[in-house]
Amino acid sequence: MQADVLLERAQVTPRAWFRCIDGCPGEIPLTTVIYRCPSCGALLEVAHDLQALRQRTAAEWQRLFDDRYKRTTWPYGSGVWGKKEWVQPHVEDSNVVSLDEGGSNLFWAERYGRELGLDELWIKQCGNSHTGSFKDLGMTVLVSTVKQMIADGSPIQAVACASTGDTSAALAAYCAVADIPAVVILPRDKISIPQLVQPLANGAVVLSVETDFDGCMSLVQQLAREPGIYLANSMNSLRVEGQKTVGIEIVQQFDWEVPHWVIIPGGNLGNTGALAAGFLMMRELGLINRLPRIAVAQAAAANPFFQSFERGFDFLEPIMAGTTLATAIQIGNPVSYEKAKRAVQQFDGVVEQATEDELAQAAARADHGGLFTDPHTGVALAVLEKLVAKGEIQKQHRTVVISTANGLKFPNFKVGYHEGTLPGIGDRYANRPHILSSDYEVVKAAALGAVDGSISNGSLRNQ
Amino acid sequence: MQADVLLERAQVTPRAWFRCIDGCPGEIPLTTVIYRCPSCGALLEVAHDLQALRQRTAAEWQRLFDDRYKRTTWPYGSGVWGKKEWVQPHVEDSNVVSLDEGGSNLFWAERYGRELGLDELWIKQCGNSHTGSFKDLGMTVLVSTVKQMIADGSPIQAVACASTGDTSAALAAYCAVADIPAVVILPRDKISIPQLVQPLANGAVVLSVETDFDGCMSLVQQLAREPGIYLANSMNSLRVEGQKTVGIEIVQQFDWEVPHWVIIPGGNLGNTGALAAGFLMMRELGLINRLPRIAVAQAAAANPFFQSFERGFDFLEPIMAGTTLATAIQIGNPVSYEKAKRAVQQFDGVVEQATEDELAQAAARADHGGLFTDPHTGVALAVLEKLVAKGEIQKQHRTVVISTANGLKFPNFKVGYHEGTLPGIGDRYANRPHILSSDYEVVKAAALGAVDGSISNGSLRNQ
Repeated sequence: MQADVLLERAQVTPRAWFRCIDGCPGEIPLTTVIYRCPSCGALLEVAHDLQALRQRTAAEWQRLFDDRYKRTTWPYGSGVWGKKEWVQPHVEDSNVVSLDEGGSNLFWAERYGRELGLDELWIKQCGNSHTGSFKDLGMTVLVSTVKQMIADGSPIQAVACASTGDTSAALAAYCAVADIPAVVILPRDKISIPQLVQPLANGAVVLSVETDFDGCMSLVQQLAREPGIYLANSMNSLRVEGQKTVGIEIVQQFDWEVPHWVIIPGGNLGNTGALAAGFLMMRELGLINRLPRIAVAQAAAANPFFQSFERGFDFLEPIMAGTTLATAIQIGNPVSYEKAKRAVQQFDGVVEQATEDELAQAAARADHGGLFTDPHTGVALAVLEKLVAKGEIQKQHRTVVISTANGLKFPNFKVGYHEGTLPGIGDRYANRPHILSSDYEVVKAAALGAVDGSISNGSLRNQ
Repeated sequence: MQADVLLERAQVTPRAWFRCIDGCPGEIPLTTVIYRCPSCGALLEVAHDLQALRQRTAAEWQRLFDDRYKRTTWPYGSGVWGKKEWVQPHVEDSNVVSLDEGGSNLFWAERYGRELGLDELWIKQCGNSHTGSFKDLGMTVLVSTVKQMIADGSPIQAVACASTGDTSAALAAYCAVADIPAVVILPRDKISIPQLVQPLANGAVVLSVETDFDGCMSLVQQLAREPGIYLANSMNSLRVEGQKTVGIEIVQQFDWEVPHWVIIPGGNLGNTGALAAGFLMMRELGLINRLPRIAVAQAAAANPFFQSFERGFDFLEPIMAGTTLATAIQIGNPVSYEKAKRAVQQFDGVVEQATEDELAQAAARADHGGLFTDPHTGVALAVLEKLVAKGEIQKQHRTVVISTANGLKFPNFKVGYHEGTLPGIGDRYANRPHILSSDYEVVKAAALGAVDGSISNGSLRNQ
């Protein structure tokens, strides 16, 4: 390569900007405090200068990402910031707020997969992260960008969100590390202290308001119009830039091979769009030459996306979401419907639903193979089982299920299942303690009998 | 290097064996079902053929460990199995039962460290692992060795332990993955279902017995004398081999530099001995040339090791451990006293204690900087604060605190602290929701007031 070409390569820096999702012209800097298109009011998305990124070949990007993966050079050991040029190239390394996101285990669910007749079933353990959910992937990008904005002179004083769970936990932790105040707005009667304890522990300002969740969303959007308050809800598209790395990382963990299927739980659907964005960017830049099929898994109690899919994606009919154990996807009017619909269409995807009983049984069955599954992942696993039963997913299909949260966040779900006290939920895979006297022969008989199968687990319950 | 030397190098394979901790002669294969010296009855430890390991230079080991770290070649991406030659060289790769142990974040506690006047305070997040505690590091070694023994023809039918918490969770998960039955024995009245739910979910045989914890220990040891039952409690020294990698990994994460201090919570004290073993092996093989100082942190309610240290390590006087929030170290007669005493002496160490109030305040204070700290880590942090106050740990000392479990395992500790309902515990760092009407001006005033500091967090409590 000639020297002048090298020089030119060095001069074109990767860059990204906000643009209108509906195609209005214009590039808006990522450090602008803005959430909607100033012309038409539609949501924004982040666009990348692909021409600049093409200066590296696909093989060079793969080698760079592999060289950085989980290494000690700040901040590139993070699964998100190891792909910094593809995510937020303008954030200076010193302004990155990283808690070692990504790099989570891609668990080979050998036993569970064998039971279903699959050669290769993998569970991407996104809940094994600093705050216990996949939200960390996006929040590192948002809070780092805010820190950059403050460094650049923006008068941001606090970051705010309305959230009942994982989003507020992630926001509070990243803001605590960065020493930026976080404000969390929640409906007073809907949320218990245990659901709040992560943001409280991390010192967030928690406002418990006499209204419902929609009321909180409206209040936080009003609040974000005050000078100095920045909005962290999912209408802010910065978080997608971090979340999209999950697809890139899965492919990287397969030594840059694309799986056949990726199954993801869907509620507000931002995650589905983000998953697609990562794969499309890899294909655009030549790192992969085909796409996986995507399956979006909805709880039957909150299934507007499934209903629309069944009608050929004619339109979104918002519903009043019913109660589901999968609380984080209990959403009747998903913000990211359009992006997710496009993703399903482009990825030859499907949308499937799972009842409360189905999600609980699938979660418990997977746990028998060594997992500790949250209810949202239970929805995805139940949908996996259905797609296998229908013959859509076949024996030789390498399949990845995205586990979005840590099961330790849901003790009541786990305890209730194994105690058999969840309303309307069977206890097919429930396991109970054998209650015994301290006589050694009794203990020995129970232990050996349970091990050799002559006594079923839990058959001694209540003795 | 000449060809015959290379040939010789290739021929001397790393190997390890059990030996008596009190020096009785003899080498016992690691695949023997044995827990005590057949001559004197003392505990066993694992010895390694250091001569064979010296075939690689220190730099070669570092490069090998770095090349493997978090990579996709099975099983070397695990933080434990990446050091396989130093851990369990005889286990075939196909018999390794790994859940991606180790590789956990070494969190730079910048804000909390600055408050304490330290330049470099780091928290090793061992609780961010498959089952949520550092026990995974040891259990992968034990269960993999069992799988190897079964493959070699040993008639093992089940692995058993008596444990109230993290050990049974780790045993159950690793056994579930390996499809080996696990038996957990627990005192009926001492343990609640939430404490059991991990082993129950993973399909372990859980025996809830009408006795106390000592009674359970005695029963499990009897049970382990039955043919086919293998003992997983900490008298089995295989687990130390995995746990010792935590010290190696910390040094590796500092690009092979040794920190000044490592602080570790101590109960049964197996962990302290394991930490020391990893550092000593690195020094023996030339990867490091000095040792850190070690501080062992005990709960004041369960402090026999601290008491012995204060008396110049004259002897261990077992005590009846009092109740502590740090339940996993509520132990009055630590099994690994001798090994831990030797470690403190060799590492110019100290033993310090923390009261219930001190551990809770330290945990909450650290959380304000973005952590979510379990009570055992709280003990270590309170001891850190004391050692800083005493001038033992100084500004420029690079200090690592080992966080042993995931805070998500302790919702009652967290909720109780922030609600102010933990008996005898002050709420100095407690944070409570601001309860507000839905009027926007009220919400705005509370948010902006809390952010700019004119309203304290929680000052609106109970409004």
